[in-house]
Order: sequence, then structure tokens, then C-alpha cells
Amino acid sequence: MSALQQAQGVFPIAPTPFSEDGRIDLASIHRLSEFYLSIGAAGVTVLGQLGEAPKLDAAESLAVARAFIQAFGRTPVIVGVTAPGFAAMRTLALESMALGAAGVMIAPPNTLRTDEQIGGYYANAAQAIGADVPFVIQDYPLTFSVQMTPAVIRRIVQDNPSCVMLKHEDWPGLEKISALRAFERDGSMRHISILCGNGGLFLDFECERGADGAMTGYAFPDMLCDVVRLQREQQRDAAHDLFDAHLPLLRYEQQPGVGLAVRKHVLQRRGLIASSAQRAPRSALTPTARTEVEFLLARLARHDARAALKPL
Amino acid sequence: MSALQQAQGVFPIAPTPFSEDGRIDLASIHRLSEFYLSIGAAGVTVLGQLGEAPKLDAAESLAVARAFIQAFGRTPVIVGVTAPGFAAMRTLALESMALGAAGVMIAPPNTLRTDEQIGGYYANAAQAIGADVPFVIQDYPLTFSVQMTPAVIRRIVQDNPSCVMLKHEDWPGLEKISALRAFERDGSMRHISILCGNGGLFLDFECERGADGAMTGYAFPDMLCDVVRLQREQQRDAAHDLFDAHLPLLRYEQQPGVGLAVRKHVLQRRGLIASSAQRAPRSALTPTARTEVEFLLARLARHDARAALKPL
Amino acid sequence: MSALQQAQGVFPIAPTPFSEDGRIDLASIHRLSEFYLSIGAAGVTVLGQLGEAPKLDAAESLAVARAFIQAFGRTPVIVGVTAPGFAAMRTLALESMALGAAGVMIAPPNTLRTDEQIGGYYANAAQAIGADVPFVIQDYPLTFSVQMTPAVIRRIVQDNPSCVMLKHEDWPGLEKISALRAFERDGSMRHISILCGNGGLFLDFECERGADGAMTGYAFPDMLCDVVRLQREQQRDAAHDLFDAHLPLLRYEQQPGVGLAVRKHVLQRRGLIASSAQRAPRSALTPTARTEVEFLLARLARHDARAALKPL
Amino acid sequence: MSALQQAQGVFPIAPTPFSEDGRIDLASIHRLSEFYLSIGAAGVTVLGQLGEAPKLDAAESLAVARAFIQAFGRTPVIVGVTAPGFAAMRTLALESMALGAAGVMIAPPNTLRTDEQIGGYYANAAQAIGADVPFVIQDYPLTFSVQMTPAVIRRIVQDNPSCVMLKHEDWPGLEKISALRAFERDGSMRHISILCGNGGLFLDFECERGADGAMTGYAFPDMLCDVVRLQREQQRDAAHDLFDAHLPLLRYEQQPGVGLAVRKHVLQRRGLIASSAQRAPRSALTPTARTEVEFLLARLARHDARAALKPL
Repeated sequence: MSALQQAQGVFPIAPTPFSEDGRIDLASIHRLSEFYLSIGAAGVTVLGQLGEAPKLDAAESLAVARAFIQAFGRTPVIVGVTAPGFAAMRTLALESMALGAAGVMIAPPNTLRTDEQIGGYYANAAQAIGADVPFVIQDYPLTFSVQMTPAVIRRIVQDNPSCVMLKHEDWPGLEKISALRAFERDGSMRHISILCGNGGLFLDFECERGADGAMTGYAFPDMLCDVVRLQREQQRDAAHDLFDAHLPLLRYEQQPGVGLAVRKHVLQRRGLIASSAQRAPRSALTPTARTEVEFLLARLARHDARAALKPL
Repeated sequence: MSALQQAQGVFPIAPTPFSEDGRIDLASIHRLSEFYLSIGAAGVTVLGQLGEAPKLDAAESLAVARAFIQAFGRTPVIVGVTAPGFAAMRTLALESMALGAAGVMIAPPNTLRTDEQIGGYYANAAQAIGADVPFVIQDYPLTFSVQMTPAVIRRIVQDNPSCVMLKHEDWPGLEKISALRAFERDGSMRHISILCGNGGLFLDFECERGADGAMTGYAFPDMLCDVVRLQREQQRDAAHDLFDAHLPLLRYEQQPGVGLAVRKHVLQRRGLIASSAQRAPRSALTPTARTEVEFLLARLARHDARAALKPL
Repeated sequence: MSALQQAQGVFPIAPTPFSEDGRIDLASIHRLSEFYLSIGAAGVTVLGQLGEAPKLDAAESLAVARAFIQAFGRTPVIVGVTAPGFAAMRTLALESMALGAAGVMIAPPNTLRTDEQIGGYYANAAQAIGADVPFVIQDYPLTFSVQMTPAVIRRIVQDNPSCVMLKHEDWPGLEKISALRAFERDGSMRHISILCGNGGLFLDFECERGADGAMTGYAFPDMLCDVVRLQREQQRDAAHDLFDAHLPLLRYEQQPGVGLAVRKHVLQRRGLIASSAQRAPRSALTPTARTEVEFLLARLARHDARAALKPL
Repeated sequence: MSALQQAQGVFPIAPTPFSEDGRIDLASIHRLSEFYLSIGAAGVTVLGQLGEAPKLDAAESLAVARAFIQAFGRTPVIVGVTAPGFAAMRTLALESMALGAAGVMIAPPNTLRTDEQIGGYYANAAQAIGADVPFVIQDYPLTFSVQMTPAVIRRIVQDNPSCVMLKHEDWPGLEKISALRAFERDGSMRHISILCGNGGLFLDFECERGADGAMTGYAFPDMLCDVVRLQREQQRDAAHDLFDAHLPLLRYEQQPGVGLAVRKHVLQRRGLIASSAQRAPRSALTPTARTEVEFLLARLARHDARAALKPL
């Protein structure tokens, strides 16, 4: 149905850049988009959890989606439409598709518990946005507290033809990828694209397990693109070497809460966004934490020149 | 600052009436409003959790608020502005106040755990909507999974002059009312209005503990008004007699999930809304459950003629 | 396999009586047991959550089980063996069965989420205690935070021949009883006994839905016995009249946390246990709460002479 | 009061070795203990969560504690006494201390939410085990779902003289260490030892923030000892180099659930325990996962010869 179903490579999770006074920074969206395209990103996902989507009102959400869609041209943009109810989800989904989005991403509300509740939720959501809108399941139990077994994901895929992709960020999650690909092989589930999140913490093995790439916001998406490419080219040791060099910083960025501050700080240090400002409720880096990030960047720069940034 | 701080009596939690096709039913809003005013309601609260607020998009939320505010005239309307982020909360709060709302109600996100997080959240929210917008704390741990001690509520009240009221629906909650009123007596907390929710399940004792009234959606708000009035008039046994007669039905309506279906069904049976339709995700009454409600109404009618409804 | 599978009537959840200094009060266990037998209880369940089971060490748990089993003679005693692991569960189960228990009750750990986890847990538990030990599923989401759908309960029943009973205390739960009985009728689930808990808050309708009786600890188990008997005798209005008279107190006792203090207080007031002492962490009744309970007892006594207690 | 208050270095979290048939393997306990002592461990902690403590019955728990205490001689052994209630906690604590344990460790039940509940729980626990039994707070929100702010930890330390140590495994947690050490500097909290867990995922920076060492179960505790020593000797780059070499495997072992299988597998591969068997509920390594672990070990062996294990 949708090209997303066959997507491979990296869809960075884009942060929403704000200026110091809290307004949306359209110039930084443009700069970020150019950068993502220049490194070979296969697409981009906007208005995700770490894109501070819940901190925007309806008009702002649409403005951010529009800016990315315009900048990306024919390269697909996925818009996060997670909402407390289906009316707001539907409104944003339809508006985004009208602007040219390739699909939408839906995370489950953290009150869902049983398999029936989860399956029912996605059926309701798919109906609310319309059967012609391709959607991505976001499976992130650490943040959303909803546990989807492989069997539940299969049920969602089989029951909803418009489900085209899984943003996989369960933890642990390697066996889940293997289980889903086994479902495809035994014919019990049709093929969908699986892109991995969770900061990329297991990307080195996720590709080997059958994932199609990454969808996460690590501040060096160029590394993510390289690792996915190296894995596809069967350069296993080179992929792991590069990944391992980034792992100390990646792990540091993957801390809940403060991680977004690390991410925006590094993106600003790289010149990709003008300010690391967040909207409230915001996390912040203490001076000690900043020093730790600089230390990690300096150590990383010994292996990857892209981390050699101008001193502060 | 605001008259709400001294509010007494009953603010029904208004359901949002939908027509069978899911559109907002403005005529029923008008009928409901007339009814609430006719029974002596001190105000009304709209767009609460059981008002299906999360199922409306931004424009619809405003339309519902407007309809109630127009119908209520000078009688205060409180608008629920709970949202996943402060931008959407601020937008709805400012628009509602511009329409003539008396204040707004804010429930905490269910991810808050520590006292510091809860206090910090309300400080951020108060700043987001502006210091001149009176707000109500909604303390409903059963639904929101956030536990506020009396000390945390005091901190919110003392730190935020625009906090004017507590929608009290902790369970158990009687000692919490006593603790808060003791804080007022010992001078450590300024006075706020306390209106009780949780379906009214303990309203008989809550007034005696120091609550100012009720803010809940039981399908016989006229009973709530009577009980609060009888308690104020020191007619204790009469208050309990009336309350006890309603308790079997009230308890039945207070079931999580299915409760809203009971409530809308009874309101429709009473001719106060045209349809019991809910938007998805919706709960529904099975035929057996409908029979049980009819049975409870018939038993109640022996004590309270308002429950003697025309047979289905 | 076990007579429990056909059990009907009331199994009170017995409190564990302590003396003021915290020791187990065997004399009160004897008195309670005599009382339960005198009112026609079909059995008893000991070492439940509200029996303060987690506050006993291994030797004490066994002592309590032994005392009840001796007092009950041939009338069945079910022993709660919920434990953080299977070794402790197995030890207590085997020791209890050796003493003459009729079966054991197992609540799920509150970390279980998916259907697979829940089913797997009961399979492991059944294996740990041995296939010849009849067990009861305790389904109490409000306390244990585990949500079991009817389909999951059916799976447990079908996979584990030693599963003989459901302690049903989901809330809302009426449709669950109907669904399970429908499974029996359509042949997809074998028959088990369903006894209802949750303080008895919906006992009036639960029997009508197909439950076999009650398993809960309300301080007037004689009322529970009467209601179940009246329902069985098709005296519907009499059953509801009696139930409704108790509902104000029953609801008061059903408050989480403080409820056990109410229950032990009333049992002491009735002369059934010597002291209302709890072990830490304990809940307590404030003087105001005691007055409220006395008020409720006095009102109840107008309908049920058993509530006419000697003044304090 | 207790030497634990000044403890520095590494207390490995010991796994409980089982033989293939599920019995406790005392010979492996002996071998593990010798190894821990040989690498310079400052002590050991037994019967922790990853020591499968909840899977032992009371007699087995004591047998494990005894075996480690005998093997460790004068080197301190801390015994996990976390239990669903205080009676079982007290029994195990007193028995362990009588055997020669240096102290006990207590994790909070996952139902605690407010600051008051957490503070009250530890006060009750300290009273239950007796004021002369030194205890360690386990602060592991990811597993126990209890969030303790620095202020709450301070309150526990100040209110309970027998609190001597924090097992720090909040995530993120670096600022928490800094905050607690700042409390010591400003005089508002007395000194306690802080040993870091969470698999060691941030050990590289935790020592720099003021932690005294590590208390975790990573399968190369010798690396943990080296990193703590290098940090103490101000060999910062050497510490980070060694840590970073282990990070890919450490991260792999730190996966919830399956992590224990990785840990026991590597310990078995290193010849430190005879079998990687777990008791139910158990996690297991798939053949693919085993291959991944071998791959990680082989890569690690290029930097640390201790990872050069005999091929399977």
C-alpha cells in the first residue's frame, strides 16, 4: 500500500528546535532537514515524544510538520499524531497527510494493559484516521508502560492493512525482532518495515536480527546511517567498531529525562540547531554534566572526526 | 481573588452530549444547563474526564465550553483544560476565560510520582496559563495514579495564589479533608473551596468533614444538591436517608469504565440528553446491565419520586 | 477433582487476630471459627491480603493455618500462599495441605502485564505446588494491578486441571462473571466455582450473574450468608433489601487501606476478636472515623438487629 | 556505628548458583567467594534481586547467607532481606546477623508512591529489624518503581542511625550522587557509603561524582574493581579506556530479564559457577543470543585478556 512498508535505512527522530524565547525556530528546522538529507537519511519522523510534541498546541504542531515536509520534498516524512483522544489524532493526521506526509506514528496511551485493550486501541485509531492513512506502531514500553508481545503486534498488523511499520524500542528487544521476522517467514504476518529506536542502544545487533534500520534521535544520525549501511554491506566488524566508539556517548544521551538536554546540546554544538532550548517541563544540563559530555566528545573524536567540535 | 475560592454547593460535572452520529449535541447542552440551574447548582464543570474531553479536538472543546458558558450566564462555569502539554493547556485556558469561564481545572499527568514532581507540575501549569486564571486541582488517584498528600496540596495552594479550589476525589479521602481544614485552622494554608467527586460515594460524610459541596456527575445531581443543602441545614438524618436511598444506584454508576454508560443512559431516561451516545473508545451497557439499572431505578423510586421514570 | 470446584455459599476471608502486643491470638481464631460455622459459612479462607499474610513469617503463617484447620474440622479451609517466589509458595502449600487444607489461593505478582505473562505465571505456580493441590485464582486488579481478561482466566482453567475456583474481585466485574459462565455454556471452559470478593460491593447482582457465593471479609459475614441464601431461594427483593441496608457500612469498610481498621474494629465491637490490633504497616481509625462507624452501625441496626451493639 | 558506613571499593552482587536440578550449589558459592576475594572485592552482597532471592524459601535463604559468610571470613557480607512484610524481614535479618553478616539490604515494595510513604516504610523496617542492624537502602526505580528524591534519602539517613549505605541505581542518577554529597558538605546529612549498581552502566562517571564504588553483578567484577581503583588513583583515561572496552558487553548484560541469563552464562564460561541454571521464572539465552555474547567476548578480548575464554 505505502512505500513505508518497504522502508530501509534511517529515519532520524527530529527534535523540535525552539529559540531561546520558546518560539518554534523554523530556520533550524531547515538546517536540520538539509543535514538529514545530506547524510543519506531515508526519511524523518517529526513530532515524536522527544520532539516535544506534547508541548505544542494544535496550530504549532501543524506548522512544524509543514516545515519539515516542505524541506524534505519527496523524501518521506512521518508525523507523530499520538494524542489523548481520537478526535485530535484524526485532525492532525488528516491535516498532515494533506500537507504531504508519508504516514503517521501512533503510540499507545499508558493505561492499556491487556492484549485485547492494545489490539482494540489500534483498531479504533486506524478507523479514526481513515483506512488510507499509513501508520507506524510505536512500541516503547520504557516510556509508555505498555507491553506488546509479538503476537499482539502481529494482530495489529493483520487486522489493520494501513499498518506499515514498527518503531521498535522494546528493551530487551532483540528476540522480538527475531520473532516478528519468523512470523513473516511462517506466513502468519505480512511484511512491515521495522526501524529501531531506544536511542540506538542495540542498533549493532538489531540490524543483524532483521531490522531495516533505525528511527531514533541520537545526536550523530550520520553514525546511525553509517552503521546501517555497513551492516547491509556485510562489513560487520567495521559496523561494530564505529558503533562501539559512539556507545559511551550514546548511552549517556539515552538517560531518561536528561537525555533530551544532552541531545539538543550536542546538536547545537554541531551547529545543527541554533539553541538547545526546551519548552517546560524541561530537563537541563548541570555544568558538571556539560563537562562530562565534552569529555565524551573528545574521547569519541579520537575515533570519529565528526565529534571533533570547536571548543566551547 | 476569585469567587470560586468561597464556592459552596454543587458543581455538576457535565457530560458532553453527542448525537447518535457522534456530533456535539448543542440542544442537549442547553437542556442540561437549564436543568442544572433549575435544581440550584452553584456552577458547572465541563470538559472533565467523564465529559469525554480527551475525545474532542481543539475546536470542539471550545464549542462545548462556549455553549455552557452562554447558557449559564452569571453562574460560574469551570472548564477542564487538562492536556498532555502546557501549550495546548494554555490555549484552551485563555480562550475559555475570554469566553467568560470562571476558572479552569487541571488534572496531573499520570507519570508524576514524587512530591517535588507534583508541586513542580502545578507551578509550571499555573505559569503557563497565567497568574490571573483561577484554577482547580483535580486529585483523583484512582484514575490518574498520582498520589497527593495533604502536604503537597498545601504546597500547591501556598505557592500558587491562583489556586482556588480542590476537586477532592481521593479514596479513601475523609481524613484528607480533615487534614486540609486543620491546615487552614493552624494558619499554614489559606482557605480554598473543597468540592468532592468520586461519584459522590462518600458525600454523606464529606460535608460533615468540612467539604463545601460536590463536583461530580452522578445522574441525579438534584439529590447531590439536596444532600449538601440538608447537611448545611443540620438535617443530618434526612441527608443520610436520602443519600442511602441513592447509594445502590450511585455505587453502580461509580464503576470505572462502564460508569459513564450508566450515567448517560440514566440522563437520557430522565429526558436530560437526547442520546446516550459516546465517542470511541466507548463503554456500553449490555441488556442485562440495562435491566439492572431499571431495577435499581424502580427500587429508588420507592424513596425518591424523581427516579420514577416512564417504562422503556 | 476437588469439592471446591462445586463450592457454593460464603467463604469468609478471615482476618488474622493479634493481641495488643502483636502476637497471634489463637483464642480469637477459635472464636471466629465457631462464629463462621454457626452462621452457615461453607468454608473459610485464611492468610489472604486482608488477613495480613505478608506480615507473618513462615512459622507464623503455618500456625495460623493450623489453628483454623483444626477449628473447621471437615469444613474446607483455603490457605493463601501468595509469595514473591515459588519456593516459599510451594513450602507453605505443601505444609498446609499436609495439615488438612482443602486448597490454596494464589494472587499474581503486580509486575505481570501481558496475557502470556499471566498465563505463564499460573502454569509455573501450579507446577511448583504440584498438580494435586487445588488452587484458587485471585483476580483483584485494584490491589494487584494485574488485569485478567475472561479469555486469560479461561486459559488458566483449561491449562491447569488443579485450578478449581475464582476469587472474583475485578471492578467492574459483573460482565466478567457473565462471560465466564457463557464460556462454560459454550463448552470452551470447564466449570469452576466463582466466589466474589471486593468487599461484597456488588454481591447483590453477582449472584444473579452466576456467581456461587462470596469470599470476602465484610464484618457482617452473616449478612453475606443471608444474601446468598435469599438469592438462591429466589427471594430477590428480600436479598436486595438486606444488602441495601448494609451498603452504607459495607462501602465505608471497602475503603482501601483504612478498610481493615474498620473491619477489625467492627469485629471487635461484635465480640468476635479480642483486639483490633494490626501489625505494621497498619492503618488506624481516627476518633472521627470511629464516630462515623458508630453512626453507620446505629443506622443499620434499625434494619438489622445484629448491628445493635453495646455502646462503647 | 558500622564499618559499612565508610565502605569503599566493590561489593559484587553475588548470583545464587544452582545445579541443573535446581538445588543450591554450595561448591560454586565457595568458588565464587574465593574469586571475589582474589580480585580485591571489599565485600559481597547476597540474596539480592538478581541473586534470585525471591525464589528461595526461608531455610534456603539462610543456607546461602551462611555459605557466603563462612567463605568471606572477616570481609563483610551484606544480606538482602527484602520481603513482603516485616516479620519475614526481621527473621532473616536477625538470623543473618547472628551468622556474622555485616548488614542487610532493603528494597522498597513497589506500591510506595509519596515521600511520606517511603520515609515511613524505612522507619518501620529499621524498627522491625532492630536499631543495631546496619542497613542499606536499595534505590532502583527501574525495577522497583519507587522514586526516591535526594531529600527523601536524606530523611531516611537522618531519621535512622542504622542506615549506613546507599545502593544507588537510579537512572539517570549522576546528579543524585552530586546532590547527596552536597547534602553532606552543607551539613544537612551525615556521611554514608554510596555504592553504585544498575549493572555499572555509569560507573565511569559515578566515581567522579563522589560514589565510593560499585555494588553490582556484572560478570567481570574484576573490571569493576580495576575501574574503581584507577579512578581512586586519578588515572582517569585508563579507567575510561577499560570501562569503554567492556561497555558493549556490559550494556548487553544490563537488559532487563534476559540479563541474568547473560550474567550466569558468562560466569559459567569463566569457570566461576558450575551451571548457569536459574529457578523459575527463568530467562534463557537463545542460540542467537549466545552467539552474540561470544562475539562480544571475542571483541572484548582484544582489549582485556580476561575475556579470552576457551571456545565453547
